[in-house]
This record gives sequence, structure tokens and C-alpha cells, in this order.
Amino acid sequence: METPAQDTAHMARAVELAAHGRGGTSPNPVVGCVILDAHHDVAGEGFHARAGGPHAEIVALRQAGERARGGTAYVTLEPCDHTGRTGPCSQALLAAGVGRVVIAVADPNPEAAGGAARLRAHGVTVETGVLAEQAEQVNAEWLTFARLGRPHVTWKYAATLDGRSAAADGTSQWITSPEARADVHRLRARSDAIVAGIGTVLADDPRLTARTPGLPERPILRVVVDSAARTPPAARVLDGAAPTLVAIADGTRTDLKADLLRLPRHDDGLDLRRLLAELAARDVVSVFLEGGPTLAGSFLRQGLVDRVVAYVAPALLGSGAAALGDAGVRTIAGAHRFAFDDVSAIGPDLRLIARPAPAPRREK
Amino acid sequence: METPAQDTAHMARAVELAAHGRGGTSPNPVVGCVILDAHHDVAGEGFHARAGGPHAEIVALRQAGERARGGTAYVTLEPCDHTGRTGPCSQALLAAGVGRVVIAVADPNPEAAGGAARLRAHGVTVETGVLAEQAEQVNAEWLTFARLGRPHVTWKYAATLDGRSAAADGTSQWITSPEARADVHRLRARSDAIVAGIGTVLADDPRLTARTPGLPERPILRVVVDSAARTPPAARVLDGAAPTLVAIADGTRTDLKADLLRLPRHDDGLDLRRLLAELAARDVVSVFLEGGPTLAGSFLRQGLVDRVVAYVAPALLGSGAAALGDAGVRTIAGAHRFAFDDVSAIGPDLRLIARPAPAPRREK
Ligand SMILES: NC(=O)c1ccc[n+]([C@@H]2O[C@H](COP(=O)([O-])OP(=O)(O)OC[C@H]3O[C@@H](n4cnc5c(N)ncnc54)[C@H](OP(=O)(O)O)[C@@H]3O)[C@@H](O)[C@H]2O)c1
Ligand SMILES: NC(=O)c1ccc[n+]([C@@H]2O[C@H](COP(=O)([O-])OP(=O)(O)OC[C@H]3O[C@@H](n4cnc5c(N)ncnc54)[C@H](OP(=O)(O)O)[C@@H]3O)[C@@H](O)[C@H]2O)c1
Repeated sequence: METPAQDTAHMARAVELAAHGRGGTSPNPVVGCVILDAHHDVAGEGFHARAGGPHAEIVALRQAGERARGGTAYVTLEPCDHTGRTGPCSQALLAAGVGRVVIAVADPNPEAAGGAARLRAHGVTVETGVLAEQAEQVNAEWLTFARLGRPHVTWKYAATLDGRSAAADGTSQWITSPEARADVHRLRARSDAIVAGIGTVLADDPRLTARTPGLPERPILRVVVDSAARTPPAARVLDGAAPTLVAIADGTRTDLKADLLRLPRHDDGLDLRRLLAELAARDVVSVFLEGGPTLAGSFLRQGLVDRVVAYVAPALLGSGAAALGDAGVRTIAGAHRFAFDDVSAIGPDLRLIARPAPAPRREK
Repeated sequence: METPAQDTAHMARAVELAAHGRGGTSPNPVVGCVILDAHHDVAGEGFHARAGGPHAEIVALRQAGERARGGTAYVTLEPCDHTGRTGPCSQALLAAGVGRVVIAVADPNPEAAGGAARLRAHGVTVETGVLAEQAEQVNAEWLTFARLGRPHVTWKYAATLDGRSAAADGTSQWITSPEARADVHRLRARSDAIVAGIGTVLADDPRLTARTPGLPERPILRVVVDSAARTPPAARVLDGAAPTLVAIADGTRTDLKADLLRLPRHDDGLDLRRLLAELAARDVVSVFLEGGPTLAGSFLRQGLVDRVVAYVAPALLGSGAAALGDAGVRTIAGAHRFAFDDVSAIGPDLRLIARPAPAPRREK
């Protein structure tokens, strides 16, 4: 049997492999797999690249061939046990004669789960929880989707050090650097849908497409949150470069030529939970929320932000539009608390990534 | 002669040595020195620890003794050439028979400068500019003081990711973590004066002392910027734990029992350049500006902020007091631009350090 240090190292590699699939696998998870032979040598590697394509385990088993017999498989997510577009991976591992399976994260999907149980029932040694946190993170979007039945939401904004996203006279181009803007396109390209409020569409007329040199322009669903159907027919978001949904309130009359999604109202706008449920029904696993401040405030207020990506420019304004509008917080104890996951220099700017803090922080 | 790589490595060590003096040398610079013998081996090291104490070169030369003859000296700042409380270092280096002197930064102080010239005149090989940027940074406070004739100003603030320093109802304790607050005390302890506006004194009644466990409490000058002498006699800042100056406007009548500094008015408050000049006259080399937002805005508007230290909590408020008040910016092109120098995780928070950008960033 492999040592715990070997387990960790091989699972880290499996997580790295899984990451290659990011942005391409929806509505499936990203998964990475490493197969060792009976001598603890790597015999095969694989990751899931796109829905409909082979699962990570299958890719790695094919590469390993006969060497998998008596060997160990590292998988970032519990092998599936159901026959979807491909056969169950649990069966494939059994057929290949793998003796031990190390799993990072259990499959929360009741349809697919049961892989570990089946393997155990056939005498395979199964261990779980190895490098679970890293494997959770690489698969955060899909795990949220599978556990909560709604897409994972990343709220992105750009602001100065003092949290302004425009100057007093409304000018805002460009607060952050060309490097930061290119990075935004990379993150957009990994999402299944880009969501913006009608305020942003009217103010900036954004394209909301992912333009990443070198990468093919994957048509990512664009969504405008627009109760009263105020989206101008000539808005760039309706340019046909990618599919677009305009979410409007039930009963709104409009002759806008666009895919309309009618939603009930909630609080001060459309019902965002219903919006996300409708997107989930369209296989949208990850949403990239690009504001503006009003819409972001609503998402936060309803606990619907799973990740914050802040591009912070090394600049100070002292006045101008705030990056975030009313988020339902009156007193400091009610602040939306996060934990920093990553800090990167992007050109002259910083990119801060945070996710909701597990529990309210206790202060003395 | 040493190779360029050796030069860089030894100067890096000299910069490291200089850093040991930070917070203790005012009104003198921090200086580090490394002496090699004729075989390129380290023979002595030293740094300047406090005004009145021996200069870095003298400490290192003493340690090196006879081994300095024919050797090389690395100094982060040009050796002084004047007889102050100690004899000129240029003479000491000559007397010790050092053959080569490598200098990072020239002395901008006309009284002390001339050391390099004197050494050259006596046949010593002198090189300058090695690792200049690092040596500038370790000595930023004193170099600002020497070049501009005013103290170096570090503006510190604590805020949420969205730039708020209090919630809508005014509550703000504590936005940042105990670790961040301890770090503030460490930075305070390195300064010569802590400056706050009367708004902050009235709102928070802060002590403005540096309480760092283990370190002796160095009495750091506390300064309240308070045109109308509104500082309450019972304010903690007047508790006698450290000296305190209350800066008030010329002609303000008051019976406040405190050291008063009368200043002319300028714009919307006291003349801050005059304030800094008065502090410089009191040997204050570095000022730690603790706000609040109104006073920080004035300092920024007048180009008097040399460093920003932002403690950013991973939290979002969406409303509440902004970390920075009016800073004289109307349009995005007029933003106060900085460059990030350092990003550190301090407990759950981030500490971002930035300094004014050398030139306005060109945007396409
Ligand atoms: N710094 C950045 O990263 C960034 C990013 C994006 C935008 N911006 C800036 O933000 C500004 C626009 O922001 P904004 O706050 O005015 O508009 P917004 O957040 O883009 O859109 C808000 C509008 O969306 C509609 N809406 C529908 N349902 C909603 C709900 N449940 N919650 C909230 N809103 C809902 C409402 O209009 P109806 O009632 O008509 O539906 C609301 O007024 C622009 O100046 C833009 O440049 C900055
Ligand atoms: N987040 C943080 O890091 C942080 C740090 C400090 C304070 N705060 C918060 O900030 C709030 C207080 O800030 P504040 O903005 O009201 O007050 P402030 O900036 O501390 O003080 C402003 C006052 O200073 C006086 N002043 C004198 N000369 C001035 C000049 N040249 N420029 C500007 N002001 C001058 C003015 O009062 P006179 O006209 O009477 O002289 C002015 O109203 C408190 O709630 C405190 O908790 C937060």
C-alpha cells in the first residue's frame, strides 16, 4: 500500500489534472484521475474534458491498460455508479482489477453516488477524504450546483483601494489595467453564464462575451436582469455573438426581440433564486455575475454569492460610485464575512478571491 | 575585485542590517554596512541603531579590525563626511585602509554628503547605485525627510473589501482582526509621531500609543489636528502616557491644558504643510497618519501621503462610512495613483502597502 505522503502527492496530481477540465465540463464535474500499477509507479493519468467525453477514470485506465491490475486509483471525485452517456466508472475500475481506490470528495449527486459502496462490496480497498479541500475547490462550481441545485455564483468587480468603481463625475474607464481586463475574459470563458443588471447594460452597453486570444470563443449564455424589459434593441448584449436571455417580470408587456425569461418579483426586483433555478434547468453550473452594485447587493442579501473576485487598482478616489450597493447590512455584526482564498498580482492591480466564511467570526 | 553577484549579495545583507535600525534612529537614517577583507570574506557587519550611537561603518570596522585593510565596504547610504556626534565615516574608512567602497544610495543631505568624493580623492575605488531601490525603501522615511524637509507620511486605514470603515449604524468594532490591530501597534512603534483628526478623537477616544508586547513603550509624539481646540480635557490622548501636541488654528481661544501648536488655516482646515514643517523641526522623521477619512483626504489632496497601509478585511458592507473622504478627485484621470509594494496576510485580513506611482499611468 502507498504511504500517506504518496497518497497526498498523487491526489495533488489528480487535482491538477482535474483543473485542466475547468470551464469545459458543464453540466458535469471536473475530475482528475491517476492510476498506479502494483509497484506504485504511475501507469495512467486522465481528466474529464467535456460532457459526453470519457470520464477521467476511463482515460487513465485506457492509458494504464493491463498495468492497472492490482494497482491504485486516485480520483478527485467518487467514481460514478450510474450509466449515463458513458458506462459507470465503478464497473470499469473493477473490470481493470484495481485493488485500491483513493477518493478526495464523495459524490453528492444521488444518481451518480454509490461508486464507493459498489467498489467496497467487490473487495476493493476504498479510502476517502484525501486532499478533500483542494478537490472541493477545483470543483467548487459543480459541487455547489449538485448540492444546492442552483448554479455557483462568482461576483466580480473592479474598484480602487477605497472601493470606488467610478469617479464623482461618473468616469470609470479604466480603473483597472489591460492585464486585469484580460484576466476577466479568462474567467468569463470558464463560466456557463454571464449575468448583468439592466443598470449596467444601460450605462456601459457591455458585450458580455469572453474574448480570450488563442481560445475559441465559446458561446456563453448572457443574462440581463431587467424587470421592465428596458434593454435597448440595439444593445450589444443582443448582437447575436452569443445566446442571450433577458429576464423580465411576469406580466411585463414588451415587443423586445430577444429570448425572454419571465420571473416573479421579489423584494426590489426579480426573484433571483428563481432566476438561478431556471439557469440550472438550462445546465448552467457556474454564473459570472458582473454587477452592477445594485444587483450584486441583491445577490449578497439573499446569500447567493459563492465567490468574490475583486480587481483592486492601486488608486484612491475618495468619492464616486461605490463598488457595492445596499447589501442588507445595518450593523457591523451583520457584515457579509468571507475568507481570502487567493491573492495575485495582475499587472499593476491585485486580484483578491474570497469565499463565504464558514461561520460568523467571534470577536472579543 | 568582487563580482557583480557578490556585490548584490553583500549589499542585500547590508540592507537587511539597516532594517534592524528601523524605528530607532530618528532623526538619523538607517544604515547597514558589511566589510570584506582582501580575500572577499566577511570581516565585519554593523548597523546604525540610534541617534548618538556609532554609525554602521564604525561598528563594522571595529569588528573587522586589521582585516579591513585592502578590503571592501558595502554601505547602504553614502558614508558621512561631517563631524557630527561621531567623527566622519569617510575618514574612518580611509584610516582602516579599505580599498573599495560600494554605496547603494547617495546622501541627499548637503551637510553629510561628500563622503564618496573624499574617498575617491584618496584613491579608494567607489561605486554607487548597487541595490539602490532596496536601500531606498528601507530608508524611505529618512530619505523623504532629507530630500523634502518634511516627515514621511504613512496613511493607515482599515476597511472592508468594499472600502467601508463602519456599518450604516456607525458600528465599526472590529472590522479587522486582533492580528491586524497588533500589526498596527508594531508600525506605530516604528514611527516618530502618530497623527489623528479631531473627528477621530471625538468619535473613538483613541490612546494613539504603540503597545507592542515585548517592546519597551517608546514615547511617540501624539498629534491631534484640531482647529477649534475641541479636544476634551479628559481625552485619552491627553493621558500623559506619551507627549501630545494639539494643533489648533491661530487665534483660537482655549484653556485646554495641553501642548498647543498654533498653525495658520488652509483650505478646509489647518495648514498641513506647516504642521509637517513644525514636526520636522522637532526631529519627527516619520508620521503615522491614522485618519480619519476627512483628514486623510486633505493629506492626499495636498500630495502629502508617501505610503498607504490598508488593512482589508474579507467582508462586505455595501453601506456605511467610506474609508476615505473627499480627496479632491473629480474625474478618473485625476485619481491618486499608487503602486503596490507589498501584500501580506495578517490573520484573516490582508495588509496592502502602496506608494505613490512615479508617473501618471497612461491608458489607451
Ligand atoms: N466596477 C465594476 O466591476 C462594475 C461592474 C458592473 C457595473 N458597474 C457599474 O455599475 C453601474 C450600474 O450599476 P447599477 O447598480 O446602476 O445597476 P445594475 O446593478 O447593473 O442593475 C440594477 C437593476 O437591475 C434590475 N433588477 C432586477 N431585479 C433585480 C434584483 N433582484 N435586484 C437588483 N436589481 C434588480 C433593476 O432594474 P429594474 O427594476 O428596471 O429591473 C435594477 O435597477 C454602471 O455605472 C456600471 O459602470 C461596475
Ligand atoms: N478605518 C480606519 O482606519 C479609521 C481610522 C481613523 C478614524 N476612523 C473613523 O473616522 C471617523 C472620524 O473621521 P472624520 O473624518 O470625521 O474626522 P477626522 O478625519 O479624524 O478629523 C477631521 C477633522 O479634523 C479637523 N481638521 C483640521 N485641519 C484639517 C485639515 N487640514 N483637513 C481635514 N481636517 C482637518 C477638522 O475639524 P476642525 O475644523 O474642528 O479642526 C475636521 O473635521 C470616526 O468614525 C473613526 O472611527 C476610521
